[in-house]
Amino acid sequence: MTTTALDSIHHVAIPVNDLAEAVAWYMHTFSCKILYQDATWAFLEFANIRLALVIPEQHPAHIAFTHPEADSFGTLKTHRDGTRSTYINDPAGNAVEILAQD
Amino acid sequence: MTTTALDSIHHVAIPVNDLAEAVAWYMHTFSCKILYQDATWAFLEFANIRLALVIPEQHPAHIAFTHPEADSFGTLKTHRDGTRSTYINDPAGNAVEILAQD
Repeated sequence: MTTTALDSIHHVAIPVNDLAEAVAWYMHTFSCKILYQDATWAFLEFANIRLALVIPEQHPAHIAFTHPEADSFGTLKTHRDGTRSTYINDPAGNAVEILAQD
Repeated sequence: MTTTALDSIHHVAIPVNDLAEAVAWYMHTFSCKILYQDATWAFLEFANIRLALVIPEQHPAHIAFTHPEADSFGTLKTHRDGTRSTYINDPAGNAVEILAQD
């Protein structure tokens, strides 16, 4: 590391079985905003981070970190929103997405 | 809600089997700081949020939100660090901790 700045957690994706029900519950329970929603996942914005609600058969639950050297973890895939990332696992087997800071 | 300010996610707790191995991996892989560590869980600080690594038999994996009316969700328990919270489940069964903003 060439900097002591802390890395950020970009978003967290948790599994839900009924997406519409989960979105309705989070929107009712908390003050948050829907950034995106389709039939397989939804992306909610909170003050400091984003929460993804995912149907596990369609998208794996994971935690996404931004990293200054994301491409050192693997070939980055460019997503629809322009973000670039790759997936790895932590030693316990948790899915971890590594996002480029750009 | 009497305010349009978004709520925050205070921390996320994910399950690990080997706590020392997981802490070492996260500290090596990311720029983060250890806020707390004992034999059953560790608390890591990132730029925008905190990540708890938990032995599931000791502490449940969960997502913790701050909420302006946390006590409307149940009796708040005061923790060692002075924070006050209660646990509920979202409709999918994910454990959700509701923390008072104080």
